[in-house]
Amino acid sequence: MNTDLEIARSVQLRPIQEVAQKLNVPADELELYGKYKAKLPLHLIEESRWKKSKLILVSAISPTPAGEGKTTVSIGLSEGLNRNGHQTCVVLREPSLGPVFGIKGGATGGGWSQVLPMEDINLHFTGDFSAIEKAHNLLAALIDNNLQSKTRSLGIDPRTVLWKRVLDMNDRALRQVVIGLGGTASGVPRETGFDITAASEIMAILCLAKDRKDLKERLGNIFVGFTFDKQPIYARDLNAQGAMAALLKDAIQPNLVQTIEGNPAIIHGGPFANIAQGTNSVIATRMGLSLADYVVTEAGFGFDLGAEKFFDIKCQSAGLSPRAVVLVATIRALKYHGGVALSDLKENNPEAVRAGLPNLEKHLENIGLFGIPAVVAINRFAGDSDEEVAIVQQRATELGVEAVVADGWAEGGGGTTQLAEAVVEAIDRSEGDFRPLYDWDLPVEEKIATVAAKIYGAKAIDYTAKAKADLRKIAGLGLDKLPVCIAKTQKSLSDNPKLLGRPKDFVVTVREIEIAAGAGFLIPITGNIMRMPGLPAEPAAEHIDIDAEGNITGLF
Amino acid sequence: MNTDLEIARSVQLRPIQEVAQKLNVPADELELYGKYKAKLPLHLIEESRWKKSKLILVSAISPTPAGEGKTTVSIGLSEGLNRNGHQTCVVLREPSLGPVFGIKGGATGGGWSQVLPMEDINLHFTGDFSAIEKAHNLLAALIDNNLQSKTRSLGIDPRTVLWKRVLDMNDRALRQVVIGLGGTASGVPRETGFDITAASEIMAILCLAKDRKDLKERLGNIFVGFTFDKQPIYARDLNAQGAMAALLKDAIQPNLVQTIEGNPAIIHGGPFANIAQGTNSVIATRMGLSLADYVVTEAGFGFDLGAEKFFDIKCQSAGLSPRAVVLVATIRALKYHGGVALSDLKENNPEAVRAGLPNLEKHLENIGLFGIPAVVAINRFAGDSDEEVAIVQQRATELGVEAVVADGWAEGGGGTTQLAEAVVEAIDRSEGDFRPLYDWDLPVEEKIATVAAKIYGAKAIDYTAKAKADLRKIAGLGLDKLPVCIAKTQKSLSDNPKLLGRPKDFVVTVREIEIAAGAGFLIPITGNIMRMPGLPAEPAAEHIDIDAEGNITGLF
Repeated sequence: MNTDLEIARSVQLRPIQEVAQKLNVPADELELYGKYKAKLPLHLIEESRWKKSKLILVSAISPTPAGEGKTTVSIGLSEGLNRNGHQTCVVLREPSLGPVFGIKGGATGGGWSQVLPMEDINLHFTGDFSAIEKAHNLLAALIDNNLQSKTRSLGIDPRTVLWKRVLDMNDRALRQVVIGLGGTASGVPRETGFDITAASEIMAILCLAKDRKDLKERLGNIFVGFTFDKQPIYARDLNAQGAMAALLKDAIQPNLVQTIEGNPAIIHGGPFANIAQGTNSVIATRMGLSLADYVVTEAGFGFDLGAEKFFDIKCQSAGLSPRAVVLVATIRALKYHGGVALSDLKENNPEAVRAGLPNLEKHLENIGLFGIPAVVAINRFAGDSDEEVAIVQQRATELGVEAVVADGWAEGGGGTTQLAEAVVEAIDRSEGDFRPLYDWDLPVEEKIATVAAKIYGAKAIDYTAKAKADLRKIAGLGLDKLPVCIAKTQKSLSDNPKLLGRPKDFVVTVREIEIAAGAGFLIPITGNIMRMPGLPAEPAAEHIDIDAEGNITGLF
Repeated sequence: MNTDLEIARSVQLRPIQEVAQKLNVPADELELYGKYKAKLPLHLIEESRWKKSKLILVSAISPTPAGEGKTTVSIGLSEGLNRNGHQTCVVLREPSLGPVFGIKGGATGGGWSQVLPMEDINLHFTGDFSAIEKAHNLLAALIDNNLQSKTRSLGIDPRTVLWKRVLDMNDRALRQVVIGLGGTASGVPRETGFDITAASEIMAILCLAKDRKDLKERLGNIFVGFTFDKQPIYARDLNAQGAMAALLKDAIQPNLVQTIEGNPAIIHGGPFANIAQGTNSVIATRMGLSLADYVVTEAGFGFDLGAEKFFDIKCQSAGLSPRAVVLVATIRALKYHGGVALSDLKENNPEAVRAGLPNLEKHLENIGLFGIPAVVAINRFAGDSDEEVAIVQQRATELGVEAVVADGWAEGGGGTTQLAEAVVEAIDRSEGDFRPLYDWDLPVEEKIATVAAKIYGAKAIDYTAKAKADLRKIAGLGLDKLPVCIAKTQKSLSDNPKLLGRPKDFVVTVREIEIAAGAGFLIPITGNIMRMPGLPAEPAAEHIDIDAEGNITGLF
């Protein structure tokens, strides 16, 4: 069997100008980055067009170690739609560099459903993550510089500064650090830490900004901490937003690349799906919809995390009206939810599939809450038995939903035309009456309760003393009208990662509530959130290499 | 008066393909980064050509707060040479991003001698610094990951690890930090710090590497520290070099941009000139020489620092034979060396100019040690009196050197044709018998003594106990055949920044000797070296802004 990298290498890439033609973008509009990558100018976004085109969200059941393949299905589906004659662009997140050197390889799809050039996209790409990292760390440097200042001090209490630094690297030793050591010339000693760049609030901001003006305003709104007099300090108090926005001059423009079959793919931004909105940028989505009749996009983790935030935060903020959800499931993942051990997932086990179905069912119910039609995509793996597949399809039919086998991994667009057809039919049948789950103007606790009860299936919410204090702080800052971006484990519908399938009668505990005033949401934390991964005992980095001609190996 | 940014904006940029034509590089060889930047493929380097073309080094007298303007003169000189009909390419260092947000603006020349597009070059450019930063920090993460490892531990003693992390940001609070806090899951607590990216050994390595193979070998040779059993650990022991080289896939390729007059400029790499070789990459220099008849390049700080390293490390390592040195001086800087206070430099003061000449004279003597002809460029400032200029020219004539007024800042190439002519004449008159100052095979102490006595004018060298221990360590590791890259203040020919002019009878104290085994040199440290600058009380960042259309202001 070929590796993803071998498959990627076997494909003759088209000049990116040819790919742009499929979106009717003239070559001279492109800001080229080599021959196969380009940035798109923001003036190509047209409201009259993006409001009319059809937005399809690819989401998934609760993730398992077996893997579900949302990105692969998203890319495959866009190939299928294009094969069926529907002008389609897939719009995805940019992969994070750090994890490439850890366990997994890249995040550009797999098999015959990939976006290319995969080495570039998985490494520095067009520098967006680096720009975000620099903008983030500039604010940190300005904060510590103000702590050091005698003449222009804002009186910031260093113990209240929540703004950390970021690096796009799996580097656990940086999670908790003490900086400012070495005497009076080298800053004020204080505790802080580093997150991975994808976890930066700047990433969330860039991906929610509608244009450069909105970007700068959001950057200025970043909440930094308090003065010794308990007054809030925002990034604008440090005059940081102009320079930060200047650093993001190019990063705000979406990137155009191609799929294996030479179709357009826009890749832009990559925020986390627990502490942030987990989806590509508003600008990229609007760009895709401005240039193509259909846009396929995805949101991180399961429907309860990425998709809920996609709808309630991104779509509500940006006025997007998604037309369909493709819910990705695999036979293996369903068996895992049905109680089968990871090592036994390859064995035929129809009963386990049946036992895992309640997880799928709950996510389908949740999709219904948003008024959008759903299609189940069974992402095919070698070894899935016909009987197992039939069980899923039968149950879906009982629920009034079509479940289609997708085999974009092995067959590219040829394996997804049926799925594409089902999606187009679902869109054509529905009225397109997307509605978000809650109103942003509701009290914070009510917003949390709505998501926890309706989406997760919780019977109650518990708040720690810290979380209650945070609620008061948020009210005091006048930030209680922001939507809630609940940080929860992706492994379970509940906040307990061990509860597979469809947990019931559980209580969700809100431990604290963070403020992302720049991004424009609150982050109720319901568990341990990893913002800076570590490397494994044998890092993938040890096997990555490049030859004298510049050919990279070991990326997958 | 127009600011540099206003002048830059007033120029109609040419498509980079047109600029490449002046170097006879076909458009399809370019890796475009937007319309005005491109990376050049390494196969354009041709030994038969680069050995024949003429390399001109621009250096300067000992720097003063008045500013000397090496980059401006380098760019201006290349315009002048092109105007005189000599096919010329200027080859420069990339500016560091961090300082852009501190006191100074960019580092892309000034007035009518600039390289463009200046906003891009001063910000992220083509991502080279970011790539270097990532490669550097990947090695750091792999080291800390090994400290954490139970199954694959190399037994590294964390107290011996010298490899820090880097960020391209002026951030003094990161100079000295403690990492690995937070319990057993978050690394091993240890002291370390962050340098600015330009100070990374990877930067020095990238700029000395001859090709991808050489790059990878040097990366593997990076000295990391010792095991508890006192065995040396190199980056190759962590299998880090392949992934690091992969991260540098694009960064190793030189960048082509243009001067204000539309002539080619290659900009690549930017190592410090005290702890590293302070000049652009070997690959960029060879590229320029492969594509143009004349190459103008510069080395950091004064002749005693950047130029000495350029000759003894870079040229000796890469087989380059420079043909002339242009020594930049300003009337103001000479007056400063003559004892005038910074605030009084604008006043006519011929006697002070005369009093400052010994600094210029010593640097001219030093140039002679390398067997290369010199031309003095008096970088004109408004207010320089004819009498002051005449004093310099007369003294130069007495020393057998021509001193030419250069006014590229105010007049572009029109202000430098005379300088260009003088340089070509100097080259044509000489035999081109460049010789380095010392043989790499000499004992380390002898190499240090040669540079200190002959170049700095020291009467003796003193070694601290630490430096003596370092000499033993270096011998033990078999690294004593490496050249010496002496880190010394740039403000004086001596190691005491307060001694202006031409200090005599001083002793240079070597405090310690660092090992840059990857770059391939030793770093005797003779003073406090700042590797992570801080921001000033009122950072330039506060005045940088970008409008809704993406136009940046406040960069200068």
